[in-house]
Amino acid sequence: MKKTIGIIGGMGPLATCDLMKKIIENTEATCDQDYPRICVDCNTNIPDRTAAILGQGKDPCPEMIKSAIRLQCIGADVLIVSCNTAHYFLENVEKCVDIPILHMPRETAKELAKQGVRKAALLATNGTIQCGLYDQELNKQGIDCIHPNTEDQQMIMSIIYDYVKAGKPYKCVEKIRAMQDRLANQGVEKLILGCTELPIAFAQWDTLIPTIDPTDVLARSAIRYANYNLKN
Amino acid sequence: MKKTIGIIGGMGPLATCDLMKKIIENTEATCDQDYPRICVDCNTNIPDRTAAILGQGKDPCPEMIKSAIRLQCIGADVLIVSCNTAHYFLENVEKCVDIPILHMPRETAKELAKQGVRKAALLATNGTIQCGLYDQELNKQGIDCIHPNTEDQQMIMSIIYDYVKAGKPYKCVEKIRAMQDRLANQGVEKLILGCTELPIAFAQWDTLIPTIDPTDVLARSAIRYANYNLKN
Repeated sequence: MKKTIGIIGGMGPLATCDLMKKIIENTEATCDQDYPRICVDCNTNIPDRTAAILGQGKDPCPEMIKSAIRLQCIGADVLIVSCNTAHYFLENVEKCVDIPILHMPRETAKELAKQGVRKAALLATNGTIQCGLYDQELNKQGIDCIHPNTEDQQMIMSIIYDYVKAGKPYKCVEKIRAMQDRLANQGVEKLILGCTELPIAFAQWDTLIPTIDPTDVLARSAIRYANYNLKN
Repeated sequence: MKKTIGIIGGMGPLATCDLMKKIIENTEATCDQDYPRICVDCNTNIPDRTAAILGQGKDPCPEMIKSAIRLQCIGADVLIVSCNTAHYFLENVEKCVDIPILHMPRETAKELAKQGVRKAALLATNGTIQCGLYDQELNKQGIDCIHPNTEDQQMIMSIIYDYVKAGKPYKCVEKIRAMQDRLANQGVEKLILGCTELPIAFAQWDTLIPTIDPTDVLARSAIRYANYNLKN
């Protein structure tokens, strides 16, 4: 039976759009009616997730729970969340609804396992790295999770906050290349673009190590779950 | 007071995404919380609107009404519809909710009048053209509404249905150019991209006659109505 996908969004608004677009682009369709029904609550009242994890901001759970319940009310059969960091709070949200929530890091780890990857590097915000969301899921699949060294991690944070979020292009391609050389030397087979801003930056670069985009993986998992046809 | 925007979507899915993205891009904001809350029902169960107007398809009203009521239920204060043709059925939907629906052709006609345009060409589906939605609103503002000739109209329908809705790029740029030459000779000052799939196609082409994107106009009207800050 065809199912309706609900997106708990607003974290941030553009990443919400990106996830929705990836569901549409990954669906095999020839007319409007071939696509899954998607409900979105782009709820910008949800407070900043990273600030909350660092103990410097309001708890985002109540607003995330409100969105989840609203989406269930209007017919969503499965929920997805367009923010990696928000997955830290997912257990509290899951308890308040009667429908499953697909887990972006978990789906990504399963996809990497299916591809036979044994060692992956996580490129993400300090917050996502610190709370160990990806490490846990990758280890469950028997995959090693490598983190960039301190200097490279600073560069990733700068790409996310000083460049992509500020709408400026990051031009130090040699630094990106050098980081990849270091990771390749450690046996890394795949780069996880574990922050929704990173696929935007990495789209411009040739990469030495192949990348995986968790938003894309999540979109494809949602299409499969909703019983629609995947492209490719 | 800040208001929540509801989008009756799915007509088609990519156009729904595009409308949502245009609300985000036109909002003056520095963090997630500066954007309006947006609820979307990308309801792909809504039957084809053009087919219905031509008497060849199911009535889209019941599904549109369901979406409108659901969006009101989860807190929308104002509704917008991401499909020009669907505006033909708007009166029936309006009667079933207690919140206003902003009217895309009407907002576009008001914007063209503000810009001093006297003659505009309407690029749209056969359905939108036949039901006279834009002609009516443009005439109210004292603006002439020109339609493409039969052959050009067939090309427009093909771009919408065989290319954009099917996710394929349309490459006959010379035909688009020739149509514009014909319209310019008739004194047309502005091309109304009166089907939400068209801005997606026209984004790739240089245009001889400046275009107006009703989706963009509607996005800006919604931001204003919701009491958020407009960019520019």
